Formats: sequence, C-alpha cells, structure tokens
Amino acid sequence: MTYLRRSWVSSANTTSCPFPLNNLPCGVFSTPDQRAHCGVAIGDHILDVTALEAAGILDFGGAFSAPTWNAFMASGAKIWAQLREQLTDMLAEGSAAQPQLAPFLVHQHAARLHMPFTVAEFTDFYAGRHHATNVGAMFRGPEHALPANWLHMPIGYNGRASSVVVSGTKVRRPWGQVKAPDESQPRFAPSARFDFELEVGAVVGSPSERPLTVEEADAHIFGYVLLNDWSARDIQAWEYQPLGPFKSKSTATTIGPWIVMKAALEPFRCAPPKRDVALLAHLQDPAPLSYDIELTAMLAPAGKRASQITSTNYRELYYTAAQQLAHHSSSGCPMRVGDLIGSGTISGATEESRGSLLELSWGGQAPITLHTGEQRGFLHDGDTVTLNGAARAESYTIGFGDCAGSLLPALKKPFKEI
Amino acid sequence: MTYLRRSWVSSANTTSCPFPLNNLPCGVFSTPDQRAHCGVAIGDHILDVTALEAAGILDFGGAFSAPTWNAFMASGAKIWAQLREQLTDMLAEGSAAQPQLAPFLVHQHAARLHMPFTVAEFTDFYAGRHHATNVGAMFRGPEHALPANWLHMPIGYNGRASSVVVSGTKVRRPWGQVKAPDESQPRFAPSARFDFELEVGAVVGSPSERPLTVEEADAHIFGYVLLNDWSARDIQAWEYQPLGPFKSKSTATTIGPWIVMKAALEPFRCAPPKRDVALLAHLQDPAPLSYDIELTAMLAPAGKRASQITSTNYRELYYTAAQQLAHHSSSGCPMRVGDLIGSGTISGATEESRGSLLELSWGGQAPITLHTGEQRGFLHDGDTVTLNGAARAESYTIGFGDCAGSLLPALKKPFKEI
Repeated sequence: MTYLRRSWVSSANTTSCPFPLNNLPCGVFSTPDQRAHCGVAIGDHILDVTALEAAGILDFGGAFSAPTWNAFMASGAKIWAQLREQLTDMLAEGSAAQPQLAPFLVHQHAARLHMPFTVAEFTDFYAGRHHATNVGAMFRGPEHALPANWLHMPIGYNGRASSVVVSGTKVRRPWGQVKAPDESQPRFAPSARFDFELEVGAVVGSPSERPLTVEEADAHIFGYVLLNDWSARDIQAWEYQPLGPFKSKSTATTIGPWIVMKAALEPFRCAPPKRDVALLAHLQDPAPLSYDIELTAMLAPAGKRASQITSTNYRELYYTAAQQLAHHSSSGCPMRVGDLIGSGTISGATEESRGSLLELSWGGQAPITLHTGEQRGFLHDGDTVTLNGAARAESYTIGFGDCAGSLLPALKKPFKEI
Repeated sequence: MTYLRRSWVSSANTTSCPFPLNNLPCGVFSTPDQRAHCGVAIGDHILDVTALEAAGILDFGGAFSAPTWNAFMASGAKIWAQLREQLTDMLAEGSAAQPQLAPFLVHQHAARLHMPFTVAEFTDFYAGRHHATNVGAMFRGPEHALPANWLHMPIGYNGRASSVVVSGTKVRRPWGQVKAPDESQPRFAPSARFDFELEVGAVVGSPSERPLTVEEADAHIFGYVLLNDWSARDIQAWEYQPLGPFKSKSTATTIGPWIVMKAALEPFRCAPPKRDVALLAHLQDPAPLSYDIELTAMLAPAGKRASQITSTNYRELYYTAAQQLAHHSSSGCPMRVGDLIGSGTISGATEESRGSLLELSWGGQAPITLHTGEQRGFLHDGDTVTLNGAARAESYTIGFGDCAGSLLPALKKPFKEI
C-alpha cells in the first residue's frame, strides 16, 4: 500500500500529514471535559476508540475500557488487523459510516496526550554500529571501540520501566556520583554532561515463554514509538564498569505519544546494513526486516527557536528490533505485553547524522553551534529536545508525532534532610 | 524483642521453629479446595489473612482481596505495624481470640505456596566485597579484581521481573551465545556453566519519586526474601562487556515464598564491614543497618541427599539494602511498590563461605565434592539448590523458608522452527 488512502477527514489527505488513513497510530488522550481514552490519530483529529466501543460501534471485548493499549495488544495479531481494517473502512472517503463516526472525532489541539501503553519492562539495546563505534572510541579508545562480541549479537541492558514518561513530561537534571579522570575522589553532584539519545522503541504486543526465532519475534511486535533515552554521561563513565549503565540511564526515558502499528510500516521495509561477519543461524535475517524511517532531533534553548541538530535513518541499525527481541528471548526469559525494546542510539556514518550530543560534540570537546548562535557540548537547563520520525512514500507520510522533553534544573538540595 | 513470644499455636514455641510469633512472614498460599490467599506463617501452620479480612476479623480496606501482598505494602509503614500488632495479640498464648482464629489456620503441608508479591521491577546489586573480588579476579585478573568505583558506591544492574519465580519452580537450563577464550567463533549452545547465587532480596514497600537518604530508604523497605539469582557464567563472560550481564541473568531468579517483615529482623541489626574509604555523605551509615542472618546453600543431585555447600552471613555485605535503595533513587528514578532489590552474592572471607559455584570451584578448576562423592564445578541437570536463612536469638529463630529450585535439562531444540 504505497499510495495515499483518502479519508473523509480531509486534513488526513495531504502528502505531508503525519497521520493519513494509512497510519492510524495508537494513543491515549484526555480533554478538559473527559478522562483519558484510547484513540487513533487521523489528520489533525483523534478518533475516540474507547467511546466508539462504549457506543457499540466497535466491539473488542472491552479492550478499550482502560486508558492504555495493553489489553488490546494482548488480544493478538489477528485482532490488531481487524481493528485496522474496520477503522480504515469506516474512515475512508465515501464511507457510509461518516455520520456515525464524526461525533467521535476530537481535535488534537483540544487533547492532552498520555502514555499510550503501560510499560511492563524496558530494555535498551546498543544496535547502532556508528554509535557503538563512536562511544567505544571515546570511552575505551579507538583500538577497543567495537567490543569483540558486538558483530555477533545485539548487546543490551535492562532499564527502568518506572522512569519511562510520555512526550511533554519535563525531565529533571539528576544528581549522581561522578569522578573525572583527573579527580582523585568521586563527588555527588548534578550531572554536568546530560545528553539525549535518538532511538526508536519496539512495543511487544504478544507474550512469550520460550526462545523466539527472528521471524516469530517480528510477529510479536505490535508497533514502534520514538524514544529519547536521556543519559548522564559523567555518571555513566564512572559507574559502568563492570555491570553496565545504571543510574546514568534511569532519570527518564521519553517516548512519543503515538504507537505506529507495524502494519503501517510494512511498505517501508528494507535491509539492515551488510553483515561483516555471518550471524549465527538463529539471528540471521529471514527477510529485510529493517525500515526506512527518517529521524531528526531538534534542540531549542529556553524561549528560543529550535535548531535541527541531527538527521539520520532507522535503517542504520545493525540489528533490527526482531533480532533484538529474538536475542532477548533466547535465554528463556519471559517477554510480556507492553515490554519496551529501545533500539539503541541511531547514528549515521557522517558527523551530521549522529544521534547524541556525546557524539555530535565528541565528548564535549567540539561543541555544536545552534541557529541562535549558542553552543552546546551537553544540554543546558531549559533546553528542549524534540525527536521526529517520518516514513515517506510518494503520496503520503507515516509520522510518529513529536517526542519532546525539556530539561529542568537539578534540585538545589536533592534530599529532604541530611 | 529478643525473647520468644509464646503463641497458642504450640508448634511456634520452639527455639528452632523458623516461624515463631516473633516472625509472622507474609506469603500467598492455596489448597486443593481454595484459590490463592494471603497468609502469614505461624509454627507449622499458615493463618489465612485474606479469609480473616473477608470475615471482618481484620480490616485493611480490602488489601488482602487479591492474592499478593502489594496492596497491603502500598498502605504504608503505619499499617504494616498495625497488622503485626493485631496478629501478635490475637495469636499470643492466652489470647481470647483463639477460638475465633483457629478455624483460619491451614497446615503448611496442605498448602501450595505462590509468589508472595508481584515484582514491579528487579534490580540486582553486587554488594558483597568477597564475591566482587573473587569474580573480578577470575574475569579480569587479580590486579583489576575490585573495580575503581566499587568502594565508593553500590554497583548494580537491572534484571527482568518477568523471570522471577517462587521457590519450587523448576528452572530450565538456557541456551545462549558463548565463546570460550580458545574458540575463534561464538556458538549458540546450552549453557555449560550454569550456577546459583546466594542472595537476599529487599522488597520495596513504599514508592518514591525523588532521591532518598539511607535512613528514608530503610523506612521504605517492607521486608526481605531469600533470592537465588541463577547465572549462566559462559553466556555472562562473552556478553558482559560493555553493558553488563543480560541474558546470563534472565532465565530465572528464584525467591523464597515468605517475606520476612523488616520489623521481625530489628533485633538482629548489626554493622556492615568496616569501610576502607569513607563513603560520600549521602551513602554513609546513619546506624548499624545490616543484619546478622546465617545463610546456607544445599545442593542435591537428582534423587540423592543434599550436601551443604556453603555457609555465610548477610552481614558480609559491604553495602546494606538501604544504601542500595538510596543509591538507586539518587538519579530521581521512581521506585515502586513491589520493586525487588537483590543484594548481590553474599560470600564470606573463607573458601567454605562462598556464595556461588563459580567461586566455590574457582571457575570450575577446583570442583567441590558432595557428600554423595560426586563432584561439581557447575550445576548438573537434575540438581536442586536450596537456600536457607536464619536470624538466631537465644530463645527463637527467624526463618525465611526454603528457597529451592531444580534444574531441568536444556530444550533439545530451542526453537519451534529453523
């Protein structure tokens, strides 16, 4: 389906609209008059799916009664397809359902967006080769940049689901234990090297109890969200040996408000980068399971206009989300509905396509210059980082909605007492 | 309270009974005739707390209607104390409540034990100095045994809550990617170096959104469980650089069936080991917050008698659970009711007090000999590992109940297809 499906919601019918009928991403929204409901974005509106089910126009066994997509995701891939089919029919230009559905449209300007799903657990991978090489060179020197295991399997670590927040939530600069190489003792201080990471998260929609093949893993994924894994680089450098990043990655992880269903991304499948060494059988690509999705990050100092600071593409990932999930399940680790699998930072080969300030400013040594003339090595208080994603066909765009967060200054005193 | 409180449940009145009136640990049980309920252990019985509340004898706002202690934990520390006080009064020798309560006792032999709480998220620390030194020496050489950061803060990583199981659940030997130092390429194979880890888990009972002092963190802990963090050492050695252990630690983590409330352990408070270097202010010990708890591990080959393979003590931990939780919260990471904080492997200074086979057999080079005459470098299929814990006063014992798991052979074919 690489042509625009036209809708009677006319704002959805432009080439650049992020939410055409081909997309129908899943979110949760409230209005001043109404508690949070599940909805799908269409043009500049949201179709209230919870209200549609309550009115008997949709019937998914009450899956939309709670303001989260988890119950619907748990109903399985056949049901996911049924919802898309029904909504696509009813929202299509010329549909007889228009008068029935029109009262269930809410303008996006009137809506506040919430977490689209309850995150069961959060795992973050490290599957971008350029990112791993850049960070490895900075943390361990260029000769040890890419760890010996890296080309053989997706390397990852578990994060904190409790710290995942939706776009628009303000993020507080953390305190933490830091020690610069030239310091003799560690200090407990506000992070001075706070950073963003441009990622895409896969949302697990089907649970599992046993190892999954890459093909099975792909079928278990419900959809994708933009993801910014805020990172305190000074805390990370001091803590990460030998058990990996921990406090440096647990202040907040911001996700976009819309889950783009896998079905909407099918036309944009493409191959991941060429493998330098053959993968073991259970991790091999059964098909081109990556996606061509353009990704950007914008940085806006407090009260000033935003500068685009990077532009990259999802297909730069060396390991696809399906390979990550297959690896994750390989130990027999149970996977659950609502597990969030971060891709890892997606950097391209060029300097302008790096997915974090750590890489863009090369550890702060070469600050970037914004359109405002200001420079940035790492984030300043008040900065807003906004991620955007777009899969572009000739006549339409699949958008993800802004994934934005602003940085609040560190607490003056982190503790109530002491 | 260092003397035995006598109960009209006479089996609770011996010096060696693990469940005297002083203990009252929290569990979830079912019988052939009854779905899972919350209960507390007393002597060789379980007092059915869910049924007591349903009968109006206790009133905690319906906290026991679901078969998990989470709702009760969320009610806060004052309520925790109220329950202990009410149950202690009603179960005390001479209590007028005996006739009313007696029908709510179930013999432990008739009960099946379930997960005592729903694990929100699972974090495992690395807070035993002897363990960290032993493992560091094996993985990185004796000169880099203890990482530079180790004496300054508790090092930890996040595990998978989905893989936490209750004592008695069989554990399947995992497959994983491994590469021995003398192999040129990695292989996907069943783990050949599968191990246990003797730990104690702290259960977070009060949520938080901001950094906690050590004293506050201690107040947020509801209680403690035994914890065996099963570990695939061959998978771990190949994967752990640079983001830490991941698949090697996600097959299963077994916890004991009883949460021993912090209040029951108060008489056993003691100081942690002497600090070689002063801790930063926010991690300093405000009081002796460790515990004197004897810990053992038994290993039984399939169908054979068990050998005690180690004997250690909780007070060997360099960082207390309160310090771990304070560190965990320091980044602003939200902590939730039901978060499980593993202590890390608790090894003593002597060879006989090491808390894992990795250390006991020194990486498999010096297998231990069981009472049956069999040797063990790592676990064999069919082996059962049982952890036990006891805090001993002159006239009573606070027990934790067995934390046991048996090892099933690896799946012949890990995948349905390929």
